[in-house]
Amino acid sequence: MSDPFVIVGGDAAGLSAASKFAREAPKQDVVVFEKGSWVSYAHCGMPYYVKGEVDSLEDLLTLTPADIEERGIELRRHHEVTGIDTERNSVTVEAAGGQFEQPYDSLLIATGGHAITAPIEGATLENAFTMHSMDSAAALDASLTPPSDWDPSKTTLEFVDADLVDRYATTPRPETAAIVGGGYVGVEMAEALVGRDLDVHLFQRPDALLPPFGRPVGEKIAATLENHGVTVHLETGVDELRGDERVEAVATDSEVLPVDLALVGIGIRPNTEFLAETAIETVESGAIVTDEYGRTSVDSVYAAGDCAQMEHTVTGEPAWIPLGLTANRAGRAIGTTVAGTLTETGAVAGTAAVKAFDMEAGRTGLIDHEAAQSAGFDPISETITTASRSGYYPGAADTTVTLTADRQSEKLLGGSIVGSDRAAIRIDTLATALDQDMTVGELERLDLAYAPPFSPVWDPILVAAKVLNGRFDEDVSG
Amino acid sequence: MSDPFVIVGGDAAGLSAASKFAREAPKQDVVVFEKGSWVSYAHCGMPYYVKGEVDSLEDLLTLTPADIEERGIELRRHHEVTGIDTERNSVTVEAAGGQFEQPYDSLLIATGGHAITAPIEGATLENAFTMHSMDSAAALDASLTPPSDWDPSKTTLEFVDADLVDRYATTPRPETAAIVGGGYVGVEMAEALVGRDLDVHLFQRPDALLPPFGRPVGEKIAATLENHGVTVHLETGVDELRGDERVEAVATDSEVLPVDLALVGIGIRPNTEFLAETAIETVESGAIVTDEYGRTSVDSVYAAGDCAQMEHTVTGEPAWIPLGLTANRAGRAIGTTVAGTLTETGAVAGTAAVKAFDMEAGRTGLIDHEAAQSAGFDPISETITTASRSGYYPGAADTTVTLTADRQSEKLLGGSIVGSDRAAIRIDTLATALDQDMTVGELERLDLAYAPPFSPVWDPILVAAKVLNGRFDEDVSG
Repeated sequence: MSDPFVIVGGDAAGLSAASKFAREAPKQDVVVFEKGSWVSYAHCGMPYYVKGEVDSLEDLLTLTPADIEERGIELRRHHEVTGIDTERNSVTVEAAGGQFEQPYDSLLIATGGHAITAPIEGATLENAFTMHSMDSAAALDASLTPPSDWDPSKTTLEFVDADLVDRYATTPRPETAAIVGGGYVGVEMAEALVGRDLDVHLFQRPDALLPPFGRPVGEKIAATLENHGVTVHLETGVDELRGDERVEAVATDSEVLPVDLALVGIGIRPNTEFLAETAIETVESGAIVTDEYGRTSVDSVYAAGDCAQMEHTVTGEPAWIPLGLTANRAGRAIGTTVAGTLTETGAVAGTAAVKAFDMEAGRTGLIDHEAAQSAGFDPISETITTASRSGYYPGAADTTVTLTADRQSEKLLGGSIVGSDRAAIRIDTLATALDQDMTVGELERLDLAYAPPFSPVWDPILVAAKVLNGRFDEDVSG
Repeated sequence: MSDPFVIVGGDAAGLSAASKFAREAPKQDVVVFEKGSWVSYAHCGMPYYVKGEVDSLEDLLTLTPADIEERGIELRRHHEVTGIDTERNSVTVEAAGGQFEQPYDSLLIATGGHAITAPIEGATLENAFTMHSMDSAAALDASLTPPSDWDPSKTTLEFVDADLVDRYATTPRPETAAIVGGGYVGVEMAEALVGRDLDVHLFQRPDALLPPFGRPVGEKIAATLENHGVTVHLETGVDELRGDERVEAVATDSEVLPVDLALVGIGIRPNTEFLAETAIETVESGAIVTDEYGRTSVDSVYAAGDCAQMEHTVTGEPAWIPLGLTANRAGRAIGTTVAGTLTETGAVAGTAAVKAFDMEAGRTGLIDHEAAQSAGFDPISETITTASRSGYYPGAADTTVTLTADRQSEKLLGGSIVGSDRAAIRIDTLATALDQDMTVGELERLDLAYAPPFSPVWDPILVAAKVLNGRFDEDVSG
């Protein structure tokens, strides 16, 4: 076994796999090719950097290149893998020094995704940003900082695209921003840009924010954003960003609104175009098909992270739900497998949390009825609102729980929680229930914690389970 | 069925049963006998009343007597049941008007517990309080209030023992308090009495606070109390409260410390002495033996709440763990059963949460190795400390998770969590895992929520599971 374990992509999945492999098989070689400059950074932290709550972009690095080398991993930044010869077990690499072939013993594709901008005309204008690369975050921060406050050391960071950031540091400071898309990125960036004193307009084509969280969460988050000065435009698609060189206006279905900055957050797409000529199977989303060990359709080739499918906890079917924890976990499992111990990558329930100012929300599993129906379930949902603490205890806040279950089996399919008092983290209870295929009746009988500062006697989750459970009976008698 | 459903005790279990029964069987009679004046009150809220965070004791009532009557429940306060004739299905009731016999169709014993004080000599002195009755809480509040600030309307509440409270309202305001016992009550009352500007000494005979939470929690809570000015005396038993009429000093194993107030919180005992002459089986703790439906050893007689055993989630054996949620749930189930639909009372994992100033903790299941061993397990534990949020996100706080598992089956047996940032409510994830008999490996693979403001990529629970899981492997190879 003279050829190394080759990993394409130096972020969560790739470096989790590399680290685990290096620990488990210290005598074998592992090489990571990263086409960019940044490695091992926290995507999810970028909005907080833009808001000003994280001092340096470098704080978002989980591992520095030095840490990575110290683990016995050969890291090659600015090396782009452009092709794979799965017959000869070899990848084609392009780098400053030219192109070369790198043979592999095992190969992990962990190339992540990229922000989609194509449907929005003008998304390449100046002052149109996405929140899917560190350079874009750095440039956005620079554009928001008055020249008198600009800290030039921000462009001397080892990894940053200094030309880009320097250019934005000298542009006029924007006052009005259009955020295109009301998912996580849009909601988090609305908070961030308000925090930078911009007048913020958020445009969302569907009729609610955060569709994967369900309507009760979307409504609460929209109200919270409005309360903090964001203008939320629902059912308003953006067709075009207009301007000569820089963004000057946003054109929606119904109006043209002058803005001087735009942030596009309408989703991501797997970075798998370079697989087009290979036998490695992908699906329409662009995601790579994998089995329970992260193996692709081709021998010795694995895939993990935002570019790959995983098994869905509830449906048992392949799903593409790009999330940080599952990228880390799948990478770690594949590192273990390649080192010799077959290890499952685990399933994904799509458990996620989001914060908007003082409001927080969590979601897991299948909430939406259409999604549940197309997975073969007969969904029924219930939404309740109750206090987060004993009513007499100061600080109790409305907590809204939505549960979706299957009418036949009475099994929980998914749920969401929204509120301002410790609401998001409560979703982990529902995520655990989903993992264990619990019925709503079992959920209702859980012995959860009760203490006046943290929960009423009947926790909001128990109240929701009780009410939904009553619906099954009703339906039987009715 | 002409005789009513008779319930002894008008608190959580009794009134949950009565309410559910009245709703399910509206044509049948239900009578609740309560020996005292207060009904349906939140025990767990009393420390916060004493601290001054709850305005009125009446805020702690879940239901008023009027609410209860409105539900179709016949409520008889100041009616004490002193005996049961299980042959003739009748109880003996003592009330102001004399003694009478009340026949029953079904009977629920929901008499709760009382604070233990007997081992402490002098616990009947003035200014020696417990925190297990509303009158005691009212009297303690009165004793802590300077006469100039005293609100006389506090003694005109419908239920309160006005003589007692009036008397305490005129006693000199204490300055130094001894709290005897370092369980929930002791810890919560330490915070409350510091909040009332007392110099507080907390005495605990074992070598850690909150033994059911395990040592890592006890240590963190002790440090927090000390930081807020409480003097914590561990391994220090209190033998005696000394004084002529009022508490003047506390005598420990090693010293006599002058204090002018004492709060005894060393545990409770079921109110089941009146069953001594009956065939209703109790165990040494005084708790009533029940089956999965809350049925006692005698036909048509049920028991629930702090006076009764329940099945333990982890051991499957009967356990006496008096807690608010289980009292409510068992009462509700028994109300349903008596109304005609056999319903299990559910199991108890001993899930609980406690707050001390800005520190919060939760616990569930079997944590202690002795307890786990005597239930037939081969316990192994791991304690980890990690951040509550992504390291770069402001407000991340140390979160300490302890997991105990069985070495053979690798199943989770119990755990605790302590920290200042949303730590307590995370215990519900472990409670759910216990309910579902999860292994530590399954726990490690849970798809929990990740978002920088709420959790690092690997939630503290996942980190603990990962480390403990590694211990199984070690032990196999070692």
